[in-house]
Amino acid sequence: MSLLYKHLRIHQIFGANTDVGKTILSTGLVRASALKGRSVFYLKPVSTGPLTQADDQHVTRYSAQLKDRIISKCLYQFSEPVSPHLAVNIDNAVSPTDETFVNSVATYIKKCASETERESYMYLETAGGVHSPTLSGTTQLDCYRPLFLPTVLIGDSRLGGISSTISAYESMLLRGFIVDAIVLFKDEYYRNWEYLKAYFAERGVWVSAVDPPPEILPDPKANFSITEKYYETISNPDNDTGIGGVVDHLTECHAKRLEDLSSMSSRARSAVWWPFVQHGLVNGDQDVTVIDSAQSDFFNTYHSRTESSSSALRPTFDGSASWWTQAFGHGNPALTLAASAASGRYGHVIFPQAVHAPALRLAERLVQKGPGKGWASRAFFSDDGATAMEVALKMALRTFSRESGVSAADYKQLGIVGLKGSYHGDTIGAMDACEEGVYTCEWHDAKGFWFEPPSVSFKHGVVTISVPSLVKANEHDIVAPSLPWVYDIPARLHTPLAQVYRNHVEFALSNISTPIATLVLEPLLMGAGGMIFVDPLFQRVLVDVARTRTPALPVIFDEVFVGLYRIGMESTIPLLGVTPDISVNAKVLTGGLLPMAVTLANDRVFQAFLSTSKADALLHGHSYTANPVGCAVANAALDLIEKVARSEEWVDARGRWAPSDDAASKFAQIWSLWDPTFVRTLSQMDRVDRVMAMGTVLAVTVKDSAPGYTSHSAKSAFQALSQVANNDRQPLSPAPGGAPFDVHYRTLGNVAYFMTSLNSSASTVRALEDKIWRALSELS
Amino acid sequence: MSLLYKHLRIHQIFGANTDVGKTILSTGLVRASALKGRSVFYLKPVSTGPLTQADDQHVTRYSAQLKDRIISKCLYQFSEPVSPHLAVNIDNAVSPTDETFVNSVATYIKKCASETERESYMYLETAGGVHSPTLSGTTQLDCYRPLFLPTVLIGDSRLGGISSTISAYESMLLRGFIVDAIVLFKDEYYRNWEYLKAYFAERGVWVSAVDPPPEILPDPKANFSITEKYYETISNPDNDTGIGGVVDHLTECHAKRLEDLSSMSSRARSAVWWPFVQHGLVNGDQDVTVIDSAQSDFFNTYHSRTESSSSALRPTFDGSASWWTQAFGHGNPALTLAASAASGRYGHVIFPQAVHAPALRLAERLVQKGPGKGWASRAFFSDDGATAMEVALKMALRTFSRESGVSAADYKQLGIVGLKGSYHGDTIGAMDACEEGVYTCEWHDAKGFWFEPPSVSFKHGVVTISVPSLVKANEHDIVAPSLPWVYDIPARLHTPLAQVYRNHVEFALSNISTPIATLVLEPLLMGAGGMIFVDPLFQRVLVDVARTRTPALPVIFDEVFVGLYRIGMESTIPLLGVTPDISVNAKVLTGGLLPMAVTLANDRVFQAFLSTSKADALLHGHSYTANPVGCAVANAALDLIEKVARSEEWVDARGRWAPSDDAASKFAQIWSLWDPTFVRTLSQMDRVDRVMAMGTVLAVTVKDSAPGYTSHSAKSAFQALSQVANNDRQPLSPAPGGAPFDVHYRTLGNVAYFMTSLNSSASTVRALEDKIWRALSELS
Repeated sequence: MSLLYKHLRIHQIFGANTDVGKTILSTGLVRASALKGRSVFYLKPVSTGPLTQADDQHVTRYSAQLKDRIISKCLYQFSEPVSPHLAVNIDNAVSPTDETFVNSVATYIKKCASETERESYMYLETAGGVHSPTLSGTTQLDCYRPLFLPTVLIGDSRLGGISSTISAYESMLLRGFIVDAIVLFKDEYYRNWEYLKAYFAERGVWVSAVDPPPEILPDPKANFSITEKYYETISNPDNDTGIGGVVDHLTECHAKRLEDLSSMSSRARSAVWWPFVQHGLVNGDQDVTVIDSAQSDFFNTYHSRTESSSSALRPTFDGSASWWTQAFGHGNPALTLAASAASGRYGHVIFPQAVHAPALRLAERLVQKGPGKGWASRAFFSDDGATAMEVALKMALRTFSRESGVSAADYKQLGIVGLKGSYHGDTIGAMDACEEGVYTCEWHDAKGFWFEPPSVSFKHGVVTISVPSLVKANEHDIVAPSLPWVYDIPARLHTPLAQVYRNHVEFALSNISTPIATLVLEPLLMGAGGMIFVDPLFQRVLVDVARTRTPALPVIFDEVFVGLYRIGMESTIPLLGVTPDISVNAKVLTGGLLPMAVTLANDRVFQAFLSTSKADALLHGHSYTANPVGCAVANAALDLIEKVARSEEWVDARGRWAPSDDAASKFAQIWSLWDPTFVRTLSQMDRVDRVMAMGTVLAVTVKDSAPGYTSHSAKSAFQALSQVANNDRQPLSPAPGGAPFDVHYRTLGNVAYFMTSLNSSASTVRALEDKIWRALSELS
Repeated sequence: MSLLYKHLRIHQIFGANTDVGKTILSTGLVRASALKGRSVFYLKPVSTGPLTQADDQHVTRYSAQLKDRIISKCLYQFSEPVSPHLAVNIDNAVSPTDETFVNSVATYIKKCASETERESYMYLETAGGVHSPTLSGTTQLDCYRPLFLPTVLIGDSRLGGISSTISAYESMLLRGFIVDAIVLFKDEYYRNWEYLKAYFAERGVWVSAVDPPPEILPDPKANFSITEKYYETISNPDNDTGIGGVVDHLTECHAKRLEDLSSMSSRARSAVWWPFVQHGLVNGDQDVTVIDSAQSDFFNTYHSRTESSSSALRPTFDGSASWWTQAFGHGNPALTLAASAASGRYGHVIFPQAVHAPALRLAERLVQKGPGKGWASRAFFSDDGATAMEVALKMALRTFSRESGVSAADYKQLGIVGLKGSYHGDTIGAMDACEEGVYTCEWHDAKGFWFEPPSVSFKHGVVTISVPSLVKANEHDIVAPSLPWVYDIPARLHTPLAQVYRNHVEFALSNISTPIATLVLEPLLMGAGGMIFVDPLFQRVLVDVARTRTPALPVIFDEVFVGLYRIGMESTIPLLGVTPDISVNAKVLTGGLLPMAVTLANDRVFQAFLSTSKADALLHGHSYTANPVGCAVANAALDLIEKVARSEEWVDARGRWAPSDDAASKFAQIWSLWDPTFVRTLSQMDRVDRVMAMGTVLAVTVKDSAPGYTSHSAKSAFQALSQVANNDRQPLSPAPGGAPFDVHYRTLGNVAYFMTSLNSSASTVRALEDKIWRALSELS
């Protein structure tokens, strides 16, 4: 969690390198702050080297006359003056994990904040340079990132220090840190400060140069005296090249940040037009989520009305995975670095009849190894799921027109077959592939026929297939032996229900009079339509029957939401046992960082556009199509996917969902990061109609006499989720810094859904389950 | 230009800091390379300090016995061992500009490449750390970036060196550099190599540790002897911890890079489906632009069939500004850093009813200071021009429906008024706002009425308004007194032509039977429709007449292409003298880096969606709406726009286009980076029908008996642009490294257009003008 207190201004001090004067300038900051009448906390979480030379001792020694205002503290002390990751070994100590370490720092800070009432400052000094190893072996920047404290960078005034200062600053930017000031010694020979002041002024960063310390004298007493004198000089509020100005500047930054945060909600309400939001229902500051920063699965959100001793920022679980995009956590350094490298190497470059390495690599892996494996021949890039579906529809319409010989006069009448509850994106053409409804606009023209689909869920603790009466009269809810049984399509193809589905589809299709040009499915799970887990057998039968009736019919799988392991499998194609002609991926494709989408097509579809006439080409493209940054991020995301798919956490989770047979558990296809017992239990609660989980997705349908998009029943059922109290059994939460967290979640009428990243930790998911269960319990 | 020779493998050596052993390891690389029988070039462009201690002298001294294979060279020598930007002052020397400096380095490299035929290696050693200042005061990385040589980073083996090595690497990534290896000394106390090997192995970067050099001895002779011995040891091919393995690895990287580049065209042709490309016309490797990297206005493109002594990479001017997006050059560090910082701080975070600083800042500046100034109240974000136009259409349809009381039964019939040649993006809804044509798909439903517009251009050297016969019988081409006169709408509103336009529009509108719901314009310039510069008076009259007839009619300005100074003005609104109800921006919005678009609306439009019912809200949104990275990049781009708009280059260019009155020149609204004399001259050439330039855009229409989208006449007229010879009068081109360059450009049937960035240099534009003029001359 990001810690932000009105009365306690905290700055974290990073060094451009080891030995650049971090402790000296920290001491100066502490002393100058105390001289301004503030209480000052100096925190050096890790100190290496002899105790007598420890940094906190240095601060104490040279602030003795102000000691009633200064509290200095070291949390981890090691004897050897080497990098912490080595020091911990030399001392035969057990190195804390980053989580434990950060929690202990956060706990200390919270204690300080709660024990002081007057305006206070804290300086937290890191060890070595910005990327020096921590006790656990990660680096300073990555380890401290969860606390997201504003920072001061101590620049390097020595030969070469211009370079190391700029590089250190850039590494801080890559992790999103707020750099309120760069401070360095005013070395008059190398004059780095002169260069750096001009360099950073252009970039809007504040640089201050402070007189350098005296040479160390051999006599300890003389040394103490000149050092004391030095601190006296630089801390003197009247010294223009002293450190008092830095303190004032940092205090201004703190005030400015609080002021900005407190104004953001109302400013947003007057300048922004939000998507999918009825502004008439947004009534005040409290109705807007003000996001200061984010890390892993959590936003840091601003809360103006917290008591003054609490942090104004609070971790909030990103329960919609930021609209189903988030895959590897916010501020993931691997994705940031991939984006940066591509931006630096290419920027955006035009794509038609051109190629660059990130796009080529991405196209090849999607077609040859990824969701296109075994059937796709081409990748067509666009910007989002909606545009990629528009491309898919254009591909399908052309392919069908060419192959079926339908006359041009009938082109506008070409229709689609799909399922009720489908959603393929918000552009008008993509909406025309869906029924008319609350989402559609004046121009909407429902071009097709939509089947009401049977669905799968846990009801009262048992796996249930709910079959609409149109499909099967009399029997609506069929109890299934198990979830794996439901998804074993080859076995189920021979069941009587399969025949019921076949007959229903045959009959319905034979009654459609307009020419049907394409079958469009969201395989297994329809998202925006209400998190409907469709009986996969029905979708398989639909594809089979439709293709048998009309061989020219191209089939589109819209995997924008379900693809790339969102529901636990790379693609739904192997499970369904049929290949589409066209498929679409987006969202997880870029790991939750940037917009980018891809439409994959088989060779048959590609051929429908192939000729020697330009007019026959697929004349569709967006300016930033296949932009190198998006492609590079997608490649990095696919790399991360490969890793997480082999992770222990996934093996464990698969095991929990697998039938008792151990060997199968590692390969279970139907599984979830959510616990099966939790899912079953939830489905037995009074207010709950049904529950289903797959991969990262949990959907809870609450009982509602008037369900639908405009219902608020799910929202009110889960209101208690905004309570931030930790579970009593777990004093520290899995949120960054162990802070109590609340949950940001979105509902679709009477359905609340919760979604994790692909790499959310088991402890986070367990904590969420606990919160969800308790929220529902309080109301049932 | 990026230099890449098959026979000459070049690596540039950067240091993680000063004094990390760059020269020693370079010497080792040179010696080990020579021992493998290669010719070796060692280039130290800048050396500071006493000549006897110069780095090139060091290399020569310790490679004496191999001297017939080694050529070492220093280009700039200064006497003081300080940062180059200070050394140049101390010596009272004139510091070269980065351009001059890089050109001199490139010239030397080209000389070496042409003078050697056998397989050779070159090591180019930089000065200090990666961000140490250059002679001109920029930093190493930014200065050398135009050469885009693959690199070796010399890591820091000292205390703190882990941090400085990782940070230096990250700074290199931010500029897109290829880092083939990190090499550092194997210091056994700090053991940085151990940590760094593991750290970088995870990130796919090769790290090698080399035995450290001996301590320097006081006796020069003894020192020489142990140093010589040291080099002998580390250069020994049999030494496992020596440098021979590094040389082999670099050679493999070089081979791999060449192999990759040579396969990219054919691999792209089998895995990629390009937008707007007829694959049936893409016949071989030579038909694909293989982009290895890009910098400022130039791509570095691969050419397989260059003679072996020429670079396989060549600068190619990005003549379409990468589909009209590029604003500040490829690989712009300010945009990269903005993207990185937002990625590190937020990743993507959900936007509905939420806010984060980059989105809020962007919304406020667009609405309050930018194109929305004075009329807009809200910013709605989406991903590209097409989706932003879909949003605009949905806004307009709702607003009109509410205000006009049209019945729901007529919703589908609601039409638009626009101009023939309009283009508003490729999604089906956006296409429905345009006439049927080559771009439209099977579902296209032309929902409106489109006026054939009068246009403005230079014909035979004079400013001409071409009026279609539908508007004005008999007189088609009207000679205008000047270009500023054409765009002085207040004055022209009282001319007889204005009345002719009024009558025509009145008559046409009164004959439309379907309800017209919105007027949609690309103000001043219609891009995809053929780079048509519309007579602004006609657009003004159209808005005035349509609004007078139907006060409920919302007006949409599609400024996706023309906005944000693409044609020399921030917005067309002040010039046209009417405000729209809705406007759309994209492309330049993110400076040419990432997809992002915004739809601005006035309060009247916003009110049409405001109620207490969720179903009335604008239910449209994309997953990555207002993603922080895109917003942060847009903010950085708008900052850069503010700077360039005040630049000398723009003042000069405005001056060339202004009437003789000097005071007016700085504020000329109608101006271009293209030279007015060049534009006039071009319009007088035999093959040219007409020419027009505004802002960064130059459009040349060639005479063609069968024009239209599928015509190839413009393409063939400008064929000579792919010739790369420099103008004889200018031995060095304005391309990076001064290399001859070719031009990547796109045509629309018989129209060829050329587009610069907003910050393209005058010398680049002059060189392009020269090329264009010569290309047309050769064929006329």
